[in-house]
Amino acid sequence: MNAPSVSYFGPMEPVRFEGPESRNPLAYRWYDKDRMVAGRRMEDHLRFAVCYWHSFSWPGGDPFGGETFMRPWMHGTDPMALAKAKADVAFDLFRLLDVPFFSFHDADAAPVGETLPEHLKNLAEIVDVLEGKIAGSKTKLLWGTANLFSHRRYMAGAATNPDPDVFAFAAGTVRACLEATKRLGGQNYVLWGGREGYETLLNTDLKREYQQMGRFLSMVVEHKHKIGFDGPLLIEPKPREPSKHQYDFDVATVYGFLEHWGLTKDVKVNIEQNHAILAGHTFEHEVALAYALGIFGSIDINRGDALLGWDTDQFSMDVGELTLVFHELLKHGGFTTGGLNFDAKIRRQSIDPVDLVQAHVGSMDACAKALLIAEKMLAEGTLAKPLAERYAGWDGAEGKAILAGERTLDQVADRAIAENLAPKPRSGKQEYLETLVAMRL
Amino acid sequence: MNAPSVSYFGPMEPVRFEGPESRNPLAYRWYDKDRMVAGRRMEDHLRFAVCYWHSFSWPGGDPFGGETFMRPWMHGTDPMALAKAKADVAFDLFRLLDVPFFSFHDADAAPVGETLPEHLKNLAEIVDVLEGKIAGSKTKLLWGTANLFSHRRYMAGAATNPDPDVFAFAAGTVRACLEATKRLGGQNYVLWGGREGYETLLNTDLKREYQQMGRFLSMVVEHKHKIGFDGPLLIEPKPREPSKHQYDFDVATVYGFLEHWGLTKDVKVNIEQNHAILAGHTFEHEVALAYALGIFGSIDINRGDALLGWDTDQFSMDVGELTLVFHELLKHGGFTTGGLNFDAKIRRQSIDPVDLVQAHVGSMDACAKALLIAEKMLAEGTLAKPLAERYAGWDGAEGKAILAGERTLDQVADRAIAENLAPKPRSGKQEYLETLVAMRL
Amino acid sequence: MNAPSVSYFGPMEPVRFEGPESRNPLAYRWYDKDRMVAGRRMEDHLRFAVCYWHSFSWPGGDPFGGETFMRPWMHGTDPMALAKAKADVAFDLFRLLDVPFFSFHDADAAPVGETLPEHLKNLAEIVDVLEGKIAGSKTKLLWGTANLFSHRRYMAGAATNPDPDVFAFAAGTVRACLEATKRLGGQNYVLWGGREGYETLLNTDLKREYQQMGRFLSMVVEHKHKIGFDGPLLIEPKPREPSKHQYDFDVATVYGFLEHWGLTKDVKVNIEQNHAILAGHTFEHEVALAYALGIFGSIDINRGDALLGWDTDQFSMDVGELTLVFHELLKHGGFTTGGLNFDAKIRRQSIDPVDLVQAHVGSMDACAKALLIAEKMLAEGTLAKPLAERYAGWDGAEGKAILAGERTLDQVADRAIAENLAPKPRSGKQEYLETLVAMRL
Amino acid sequence: MNAPSVSYFGPMEPVRFEGPESRNPLAYRWYDKDRMVAGRRMEDHLRFAVCYWHSFSWPGGDPFGGETFMRPWMHGTDPMALAKAKADVAFDLFRLLDVPFFSFHDADAAPVGETLPEHLKNLAEIVDVLEGKIAGSKTKLLWGTANLFSHRRYMAGAATNPDPDVFAFAAGTVRACLEATKRLGGQNYVLWGGREGYETLLNTDLKREYQQMGRFLSMVVEHKHKIGFDGPLLIEPKPREPSKHQYDFDVATVYGFLEHWGLTKDVKVNIEQNHAILAGHTFEHEVALAYALGIFGSIDINRGDALLGWDTDQFSMDVGELTLVFHELLKHGGFTTGGLNFDAKIRRQSIDPVDLVQAHVGSMDACAKALLIAEKMLAEGTLAKPLAERYAGWDGAEGKAILAGERTLDQVADRAIAENLAPKPRSGKQEYLETLVAMRL
Ligand SMILES: [Co+2]
Ligand SMILES: [Co+2]
Ligand SMILES: [Co+2]
Ligand SMILES: [Co+2]
Ligand SMILES: [Co+2]
Ligand SMILES: [Co+2]
Ligand SMILES: [Co+2]
Ligand SMILES: [Co+2]
Repeated sequence: MNAPSVSYFGPMEPVRFEGPESRNPLAYRWYDKDRMVAGRRMEDHLRFAVCYWHSFSWPGGDPFGGETFMRPWMHGTDPMALAKAKADVAFDLFRLLDVPFFSFHDADAAPVGETLPEHLKNLAEIVDVLEGKIAGSKTKLLWGTANLFSHRRYMAGAATNPDPDVFAFAAGTVRACLEATKRLGGQNYVLWGGREGYETLLNTDLKREYQQMGRFLSMVVEHKHKIGFDGPLLIEPKPREPSKHQYDFDVATVYGFLEHWGLTKDVKVNIEQNHAILAGHTFEHEVALAYALGIFGSIDINRGDALLGWDTDQFSMDVGELTLVFHELLKHGGFTTGGLNFDAKIRRQSIDPVDLVQAHVGSMDACAKALLIAEKMLAEGTLAKPLAERYAGWDGAEGKAILAGERTLDQVADRAIAENLAPKPRSGKQEYLETLVAMRL
Repeated sequence: MNAPSVSYFGPMEPVRFEGPESRNPLAYRWYDKDRMVAGRRMEDHLRFAVCYWHSFSWPGGDPFGGETFMRPWMHGTDPMALAKAKADVAFDLFRLLDVPFFSFHDADAAPVGETLPEHLKNLAEIVDVLEGKIAGSKTKLLWGTANLFSHRRYMAGAATNPDPDVFAFAAGTVRACLEATKRLGGQNYVLWGGREGYETLLNTDLKREYQQMGRFLSMVVEHKHKIGFDGPLLIEPKPREPSKHQYDFDVATVYGFLEHWGLTKDVKVNIEQNHAILAGHTFEHEVALAYALGIFGSIDINRGDALLGWDTDQFSMDVGELTLVFHELLKHGGFTTGGLNFDAKIRRQSIDPVDLVQAHVGSMDACAKALLIAEKMLAEGTLAKPLAERYAGWDGAEGKAILAGERTLDQVADRAIAENLAPKPRSGKQEYLETLVAMRL
Repeated sequence: MNAPSVSYFGPMEPVRFEGPESRNPLAYRWYDKDRMVAGRRMEDHLRFAVCYWHSFSWPGGDPFGGETFMRPWMHGTDPMALAKAKADVAFDLFRLLDVPFFSFHDADAAPVGETLPEHLKNLAEIVDVLEGKIAGSKTKLLWGTANLFSHRRYMAGAATNPDPDVFAFAAGTVRACLEATKRLGGQNYVLWGGREGYETLLNTDLKREYQQMGRFLSMVVEHKHKIGFDGPLLIEPKPREPSKHQYDFDVATVYGFLEHWGLTKDVKVNIEQNHAILAGHTFEHEVALAYALGIFGSIDINRGDALLGWDTDQFSMDVGELTLVFHELLKHGGFTTGGLNFDAKIRRQSIDPVDLVQAHVGSMDACAKALLIAEKMLAEGTLAKPLAERYAGWDGAEGKAILAGERTLDQVADRAIAENLAPKPRSGKQEYLETLVAMRL
Repeated sequence: MNAPSVSYFGPMEPVRFEGPESRNPLAYRWYDKDRMVAGRRMEDHLRFAVCYWHSFSWPGGDPFGGETFMRPWMHGTDPMALAKAKADVAFDLFRLLDVPFFSFHDADAAPVGETLPEHLKNLAEIVDVLEGKIAGSKTKLLWGTANLFSHRRYMAGAATNPDPDVFAFAAGTVRACLEATKRLGGQNYVLWGGREGYETLLNTDLKREYQQMGRFLSMVVEHKHKIGFDGPLLIEPKPREPSKHQYDFDVATVYGFLEHWGLTKDVKVNIEQNHAILAGHTFEHEVALAYALGIFGSIDINRGDALLGWDTDQFSMDVGELTLVFHELLKHGGFTTGGLNFDAKIRRQSIDPVDLVQAHVGSMDACAKALLIAEKMLAEGTLAKPLAERYAGWDGAEGKAILAGERTLDQVADRAIAENLAPKPRSGKQEYLETLVAMRL
């Protein structure tokens, strides 16, 4: 094959902001990158990244069916040439969407090697290509990561593999990916442990694997400092799939792991909506919890189907859900190194090249609209005021003393008895608050 | 009403061991209390406890229907007399089943008071009654606990309530229950946070509530030491129900919380099967993880329905599942202060008094059979041998050095490159192991 | 107690339309009853009904906690006086909300009797009261129904009970409720089989119960004709809860049952969002399927929580979901006898009287806004045009011939061979369509 | 490549019955094919079939990772030669396991063609091969089927495709597969509609697709009669995956569909455990319901993971669950044309050839043990006797008259009033029955 020209997506101008009344599905109606929102340009708030894997490396297969997309760069005999053609299309899409960031795994961008040296050589060649592409583009690297789950060598785990040689192979791969990320100006480095878990406890030594994983992550943190990589490491929680159980089940689980290994300073979380709901949590719960625990890092922006039990990774168009997430984000000042990474894939039937553009446009708009609503709600104190009132009792002297550790159980209990307490419950006002939010949408 | 005589369950002898061939559904076929299992009497291994709430305080209602059981001690005008009648029936059931333990909440055993002093007075009176009962019975107290979820004062939480007076009321109640547990010889003290969570994030300050809960638990730990209560505190994880989200979601979440507040020494977990599956975990996962993290405490033995989304708390008759759990338990030497507490309720249609006896007998037998199988599997190394082989690589010098923190990422990665690693995957042998287990059942 | 005055909800004017910009949470922003929508007044499209059970008969309990609402009409010694006081409050709320309809079960409105004659006598007395109320109100009866699930006599089913006397008791109750519904001008009669199912197959004769249920429903249909009740019977599907399995699992299951018994003419379905998702379906799926099968009747408008496994029956504020449902509805011309019945309950913590008003206002507004969007989408052909294009092939001669039964397998297969078919797939355009919908919200 | 010799599974004798005490994991401990069970040889009861797809055509990939098995017959340049090599291995496994049946899709056994004539030519060539293999083997064909879901042409459905040419392609394929099944002596013909459903209602005309599917199935039934194929058609219900919603959701849904199209005589169901639980039903529910509705056909014997939301298709080793299913089966006299088809796949990590043998042996044994327990329970009336007692009331004159349609609602209701009915509930005895069953396991 030849490298696809810029015309892979057909004759198309870069997508532009046309305002809410536009009926052009390939225009932005809400995403107005230079509009100021809570003190920053919208582009600098949302920090969108297009991901390499779903958008350029997935052929449209599913567990019951094969390729549907027939991407030209997936059919040919020279893997390196195909990888370069893929990079051309990728940066063409970045340009058309006018996004500030992208993200990638080694295995998305470069041909996978069988031995470690071969694998690293392939990666190095593509990193050169990407470096050139980045230099000629507005689109920068949000984060890099290593695919430690697709190759059969990882079928029983990477860091948690029963074979220490697989651990070593993974170490070599992560080092290379971390260093490539640094070189390419990446602002974070992500670890997702799709095979760090088990299929059955019958063949699993849970405690030993916990230690392997802890040591692995610690080594990566040490290396990050050694090479002077500034960004945080980000663990991406997911409860299951492909494994029966994955050790990074959810934000709370990752937090316990980081506390155990003393890594809460260096490692944060990359939260994905679909992984949140697979773990039984709302998206906004995972974000709020990560902030409460001080480990919020970044977001994989997508949407699962609550009626399906697997990771559908759909493009989110749900302004209501996004509003609550961005409200939380804005409350804490917005992203630092993180961003909104589209770990989202078009449906298997969306086989037209333009479908890939469309999906990003629709979801970017939903995010932009949600951001604007969240900004307004914060400015008005829509939720903040009732919240402050609800907990006002804890701002009194006794409440503060309790939380400051200045009261014993005896003191608190004795006061309760002395005052003959029979506290009156107060309405939680859930429907009132829901109505307030609905009014803003 | 009058106190029910010992004949509430009809004319019945205490349930006895009759051996596997017995066709008497009110005999033990496997539970042979004096039989030696892994160095202890079976009774001392299983440490069964009957719970007060489901067995004596639940009228048989559900969200769509009212009372079905028509227990005589639930109908009358003198709450204290009814509570005493209930205690008579309870200890009668303990005698019939010949169980070594029971467990209770304040609200199960004593009339609930509206003010704290009234509530504590009622409790004190019943604690006297229970003390007398225990003195005249073989059945001792496995653990006590406080009901901080049923009364409307707790509708928005106990320790995590927006009102510090509710926190104080809860503190007064827990102090009383902890001290009652100590006085009654209880071996553990349990906290289940059914309302420590939220219905909607719209009205919830997650971080503040995390701090309230942390301080509350710390105060209880301090008090435990002050009064010299020897047993551990046990947190019982549950992800949801009654709340939308409960802060003690699962074992991993509780672990992170305990690490954060520095309480892993004093606080362990009480694991329930039904809560495990509501959180998306197998029962054996939660037990194995608690051991791996060093916080295993005790078990609420029951069974949920994996196709239903709420806490059915059924009596477990599933020998296969129990075998895996007891295998884990025996591997670690069995219970210390913990036991198997029947947090299980008969179905709403099981309205005959004998149904309550039957349910315990069936489940005790299932546990006993599972314990015997687990003992055999451990003795034979059924699972332990293949497991050791699978991880043998980590017992080598390099594996040990990695886990001991004696290798950097560079060292491990450089070795992988130098050795041109291309690790060969080895079969996980899942079906082989499943067959081995099935052979033993 | 005395009957609550009209001031139970505090000093309050009836809720009025104030337009989208209003910040008054107790005003309608979208519900403008006289506005014309697709040829009808909005009020005549939405046909809102307030339900008696959740709004006036539920005390705020849940499986882990008791009453929170402390409604005055639930505390007193004269059940009939309380029932009348409840009716006063109910019609006061109807007035405040200005809704055209309400709905009720016998057991919501009248004291439950232990024997059938006593039960029917109570009901008759309340029906007189309701008749007077209706006469003096704009609010009419959308539908009546019988509660065949709360009393312990129904614990093992009503029509499907192993005891034919329970079947007979249920028959007597349904006859009375159906006749009361007719007398009160009700436009439909609903059957929800909360106990028509099983807890365990071990004690269940599935086939026999299927026959009992079939005969019961047939008898009710026959009676409906006998007494000249004009409205349809409506079965409300639900998959589980309170039972493990309920025979009216979902729309498709009910359809098979109606086909089997030849009742598709007389019996339709009453679809509830929360029941849809418990069965693994979207709300819009159940509505679309009911229309496709010709059995669409009415809607219980509420919202479940997709992360919880039970029937939360929340007030829906989800304009996106509602839009798809109303789009389907409008496509078919809207309701005939059906309506939007608020089978929705405020949260247990919403203990202020005004919370009940607020919840209805918020959800009515969400419905109104969704209706307007759906109207616009239909007018524009937003979804209809792409749909017609997608299936255009079936409008050709061959497509029509196939569907008309004019082609054999041989003919179709032979043509496929003769034409050497290798059909080209066309994009499903899911993200494009989602963007179109999102643009309209 | 060359055809693998019989040594693909290593040096191995056919698996033999060695009795329950055998510790040989590659022996049968319970499966004793000539043992008489309820009047038939065990082999004739269980009617095991090995399936082609999972066992010989699946490379060990999953949504996050590629091939792990490296089967020699999947790597080569001559598809037809590979297909023949695969057939050699398949019949070698059948011989080693000594199973009476196998099953296959066109696409498992023969290379897939791009045009219909090419596809049919490939299939015809392999059918010749299979015919020869069958002639030389004890293993016969339980059923054949067509794969109408893997190729991209089917991405939007086969019979329900918006393009009638795809319908025609599917018709040509099904005709060929049905005729091949007949020629090979197959006893049933199966249809599983993996793509007969939708990804989004936004692009779906539910009613039209229902008609397409109805006509398709009717044409296949007509053709079956035309060619004199004796066996039933079997629809295999599944609620979702790969689609969001599949039209053959569960047994009840299929029943409604068959009733609608008048096909209940000719079409039965093939029930799979994993599909049952994905639809929210127990395995035994689906079997019992199919019998109650008169459409029971055959079984795909496997096991899902109730904590995972996708089709894991594991080998079942769960004797308890299987016992309830076989109890239902034996109650109705056992299979006629159906059998136990292993629609089960070894785990992705089970990469040793022997793992494939092991998995079948373990599951065949579990089935055999369950069958023996079910036989004993039926002989003893363990469940049948309490069941008959529970419903005895319906065997009286009034109960019979009601079910026979000889009573009106008025008659039944009037009797209930005249007799002043206040029925007494009776215990459902669930724990008693569970104990009875547990005793037998
Ligand atoms: Co994902
Ligand atoms: Co992600
Ligand atoms: Co518990
Ligand atoms: Co529980
Ligand atoms: Co409803
Ligand atoms: Co509901
Ligand atoms: Co399957
Ligand atoms: Co199957």
